Amino acid sequence: MPGDRPTQIKVTYRVETTGSIEAVAAKIASDQSTGTFTEVAGETAELKARCAARVVEIRPLPDARDPGFPTDRPGPFVRADVGIEFPLDVVGTDIAALLTICLGGVFSIRELTGIRIVDIDLPDAFVRAQPGPQFGIEGSRRLTAVHGRPLIGTIIKPNLGLSPTESAQIARQLVEAGVDFIKDDEKLMNPGYSPLEERVRAVMPIILDHEQKTGKKVMYAFGLSSSDPDQMLRHHDAILAAGGNAAVVNIVSVGPAGLHFLRKRSGLVLHAHRNGWDILTRHPALGFEFSVYQKIWRLLGVDQFQVNGIGAKYWEPDDSFVRSFQACSTPMLSLADRALPVVCSGQWGGQAPETYRRTGETIDLLYLGGGGIIGHPGGPAAGVRAIRQSWEAAVQGISLQDYARSHRELAQSIERFGGNQS
Amino acid sequence: MPGDRPTQIKVTYRVETTGSIEAVAAKIASDQSTGTFTEVAGETAELKARCAARVVEIRPLPDARDPGFPTDRPGPFVRADVGIEFPLDVVGTDIAALLTICLGGVFSIRELTGIRIVDIDLPDAFVRAQPGPQFGIEGSRRLTAVHGRPLIGTIIKPNLGLSPTESAQIARQLVEAGVDFIKDDEKLMNPGYSPLEERVRAVMPIILDHEQKTGKKVMYAFGLSSSDPDQMLRHHDAILAAGGNAAVVNIVSVGPAGLHFLRKRSGLVLHAHRNGWDILTRHPALGFEFSVYQKIWRLLGVDQFQVNGIGAKYWEPDDSFVRSFQACSTPMLSLADRALPVVCSGQWGGQAPETYRRTGETIDLLYLGGGGIIGHPGGPAAGVRAIRQSWEAAVQGISLQDYARSHRELAQSIERFGGNQS
Repeated sequence: MPGDRPTQIKVTYRVETTGSIEAVAAKIASDQSTGTFTEVAGETAELKARCAARVVEIRPLPDARDPGFPTDRPGPFVRADVGIEFPLDVVGTDIAALLTICLGGVFSIRELTGIRIVDIDLPDAFVRAQPGPQFGIEGSRRLTAVHGRPLIGTIIKPNLGLSPTESAQIARQLVEAGVDFIKDDEKLMNPGYSPLEERVRAVMPIILDHEQKTGKKVMYAFGLSSSDPDQMLRHHDAILAAGGNAAVVNIVSVGPAGLHFLRKRSGLVLHAHRNGWDILTRHPALGFEFSVYQKIWRLLGVDQFQVNGIGAKYWEPDDSFVRSFQACSTPMLSLADRALPVVCSGQWGGQAPETYRRTGETIDLLYLGGGGIIGHPGGPAAGVRAIRQSWEAAVQGISLQDYARSHRELAQSIERFGGNQS
Repeated sequence: MPGDRPTQIKVTYRVETTGSIEAVAAKIASDQSTGTFTEVAGETAELKARCAARVVEIRPLPDARDPGFPTDRPGPFVRADVGIEFPLDVVGTDIAALLTICLGGVFSIRELTGIRIVDIDLPDAFVRAQPGPQFGIEGSRRLTAVHGRPLIGTIIKPNLGLSPTESAQIARQLVEAGVDFIKDDEKLMNPGYSPLEERVRAVMPIILDHEQKTGKKVMYAFGLSSSDPDQMLRHHDAILAAGGNAAVVNIVSVGPAGLHFLRKRSGLVLHAHRNGWDILTRHPALGFEFSVYQKIWRLLGVDQFQVNGIGAKYWEPDDSFVRSFQACSTPMLSLADRALPVVCSGQWGGQAPETYRRTGETIDLLYLGGGGIIGHPGGPAAGVRAIRQSWEAAVQGISLQDYARSHRELAQSIERFGGNQS
């Protein structure tokens, strides 16, 4: 990855303009380093040589048919992938500096009708300066003692409105149903009707009791997102003290410094939900590729990353999910810095074969079924069995229909949810 | 503002779809509160009544000519502003919960071809639970002792590459030139060539020396953004200990929890730079209106908010700047919760009359000239005088051309920068 310029951060911008690609590339490099809108005395040749960003690559792309952003200017809307290098000495190794200098201001440039960050190459020295995942894929497997198959997880439903006691009752069902992982819905954090500490007190005895009886410790991720890092830390400590080992963090809602703060002090697996991320990627001419975005958050310490799934209920196309899955699973410097991809959204098992096939036949994932487990006609235990069966079929290369002939729970799932699969 | 339902958070979404507006509005309300993709046992009528979000208003808008997001589906692309109320008891008063439940997940909904959050009404109880600005407009005036005119500020240029000693030399020129406010460029934080603490040690004696000689204390905002809140706090403490009173925070780069952490402990005026914000607003069918976004950050504690300006060098149209300026200046519960609007980007004074006219003839702003001051042909002191002159002309209703006849520095600015004014 470091390439032949290990002291440079290289960012690839997909730019679209009615003007000149070369001019707009030069403008990005200037605006995002030493330049302003007029010449100033101190911007010497020496300072520029030391500090300026430089355009190192322009790869033309076909013109856009329609402009990315509405514009009165006539086309053609020319496009290119523009590679720009920023000296590491100038940016430093702080993620906030990376976001500000390399990944932020560029979106304001007037001459663009489209601007999307599609790749980033970080020098090893930058990567090594970050905490990275504390648990990642290996830690998630170690703590759940699940090997040789995907982790199977679920979400307490309904999303909102349950008291701690009600959440715990459902958690008990799910634990007994054989899941490896349970999480609060990302919308459940610390409301008056279910304060986090009360929920921890209600849920954790069930997890620990089950562990004592069966030897199996279910990972329960409590929703501890808060705009107040001190509160996140109090909640972190309460989870840890009660024997818990995971937390859901809504990364966009807390932001980089929130995650950094938590990671420095954390004894918990950090499970990232990315609600709000869609703004940054949904329009193809704007924002970020997830391959870029997930690097930032892994460096900050995300252990498990929700990436949707095949046939998700959301807007995201399957191809995008596959790229996201692979991005999370690709090491930066070592296997330890991978995040466990969390396959979710409308998953009930039916998508297992295609998930397996399209993600390189790996079983290193956490497969989350929400309504697909709790809404199973035979109850949650049957829902979990159905998902396990669908993964057995996927790995063995047997069609779900065939496997369902001898696996009743899978057959029931197909009957109930099959129409939802796109 | 609270309306007749003071226990509800009301969010207005501008939605666009090829389907039914009513259906997609109902889906937003369900997905963002109690629902999932299939019925689950616990989603009882009682729970829904207590916790579900409700569609309270649908105001149709003209169809979009082109879809907001590229789609294979044929039009028409129907649009409406949809008002949805969320029970305050369910969301609580944590900003991360507000972002997650009301302002985040909605962007993922498949049926939409456009989704933009255009308004938010927060109950008084929500607003009161937040720290809000510590200094705001009044505090900024008190600390600079500037009354009866806009604060005039500038930015150390070049943006990057100066040593602390070089920055201090320029700061000395600017202080002597008569500015009220100086800031680090947002891209300057804590690089190896200019560690923040060294910069503080180099710059602050100049500020304090000038204060002792003249009684005028220039506000200097140091760039302390970091993804590490502990480092931000160390830097905050260093600034405060050296007699400083302000900091630049790149709000998007640190995120909500970073600002919250700082605000709880802060003795400094927090000057917000919003680099990266453009992603969230540049496409008109996607993201946020600034009127919504700025509320979140003021509640978290922003004192001064950069909002671009008339004829800015960026993409933002003047109308959008005017709306942003007015949004920051509009109280939520009291005058104290306003943020000082910071007018910036390519400003050299020429835009003062139109700024004054279009923002309701207020002088409650910080007017920032970067290149417009340091790049003035007569030097920085002449640049500051030119900007003061342009504001005198604006307030007195005299054209800049007329005023320039008796004000040489303004005449020079017009000659040098007049071609840049759009």
